[in-house]
Amino acid sequence: MSLLQDLNWRYATKKMNGNVVPQEKIDYIIEAARLAPTYSGLHHFIVIEITSPELKAKIQPIAMGQTQIVDASHLLVFAAYDEYTNDRIESVFAQQERERDLPAGFATDYKNALISSFQQKTKDQHFEHSARQAYIGFGLSIAAAAEQRVDATPMEGFINAELDELLGLAAQNLKSVTILALGYRDTENDWLVNMKKVRKAKEDFVIQLN
Amino acid sequence: MSLLQDLNWRYATKKMNGNVVPQEKIDYIIEAARLAPTYSGLHHFIVIEITSPELKAKIQPIAMGQTQIVDASHLLVFAAYDEYTNDRIESVFAQQERERDLPAGFATDYKNALISSFQQKTKDQHFEHSARQAYIGFGLSIAAAAEQRVDATPMEGFINAELDELLGLAAQNLKSVTILALGYRDTENDWLVNMKKVRKAKEDFVIQLN
Repeated sequence: MSLLQDLNWRYATKKMNGNVVPQEKIDYIIEAARLAPTYSGLHHFIVIEITSPELKAKIQPIAMGQTQIVDASHLLVFAAYDEYTNDRIESVFAQQERERDLPAGFATDYKNALISSFQQKTKDQHFEHSARQAYIGFGLSIAAAAEQRVDATPMEGFINAELDELLGLAAQNLKSVTILALGYRDTENDWLVNMKKVRKAKEDFVIQLN
Repeated sequence: MSLLQDLNWRYATKKMNGNVVPQEKIDYIIEAARLAPTYSGLHHFIVIEITSPELKAKIQPIAMGQTQIVDASHLLVFAAYDEYTNDRIESVFAQQERERDLPAGFATDYKNALISSFQQKTKDQHFEHSARQAYIGFGLSIAAAAEQRVDATPMEGFINAELDELLGLAAQNLKSVTILALGYRDTENDWLVNMKKVRKAKEDFVIQLN
């Protein structure tokens, strides 16, 4: 199957049946996000994998009561760091030098330019930039789930501050961005399952400048 | 090949050789973005496909002189609408009713809640939200390029306001978000081509709450 076939197969599942997704498929879906390209390789987001029924039950009211939260097999919470600290940038470059066997200081000028450019931005801008990177990973996990024929609901409809509080994210300098609920569709009870996929028409989506 | 194999194959190409990518592959890569899921299906971004050498030459200085801009076969500029206007939201719901053969007003309450929630946000928040959606499509186009064995450079390093001006985006209520340069690697002259892919270690990327 091709990516386009996978993307045409998937849809934002509205009702899941509670069946469990094998852990190797979950690992595969998370790995797609881990491999995401990010700005200057800074990789400023992580994934929180949740299976605990008690925790899902606490998340449901934070997420407008959506049933996928509790009927999903796994929830993936994409969370981004709230600030590009010098330490975090330094550690990425140190890792690159180590793993690529580069001389120390190989990219010092580039690294210093990055640090300096982030110092000119607000903490809100840091987070917003990091959140955008998380969306690349989010997109790749959505593609990976479809390829593995795991149903998924991409979710933004939740109260971020309350989820952050529940998961203790502030202490880790993280803030929640999105949720990807993973599981299997309840074909009988999902109103969206048989509906046509609606997207912007090609002529409205692409402008060609040749 | 699987998505993970594709993602391991790809890298942010630093030097391209100028060869032309067949149009059907470009169309495929754009189609992946068109199929991207977006918040409430509002699909608030588009893609501008650029092949004109004159235009690429004008973009290069706006993009820190990066050579991929001119050596790429095609540039895809991802651009997002600057405001969720009532008209734009209405038209998405009208399209859904039409294409899904639903009774008129099928989702009026939901649509009105959306409109009301966006009215409580600033124009900057509208754009930021739209830009995040564009990143989902950006991620899917990156995956599609890798699957098609087309090299790609995801780029944020350009002066958005100048690109918007050059492309006349303001008149279309659009603002540039990212560029995806598509082409083929110049294996001899790309310093990154043989370097190990470096990513956050799995243990630093995933938190399991079971």
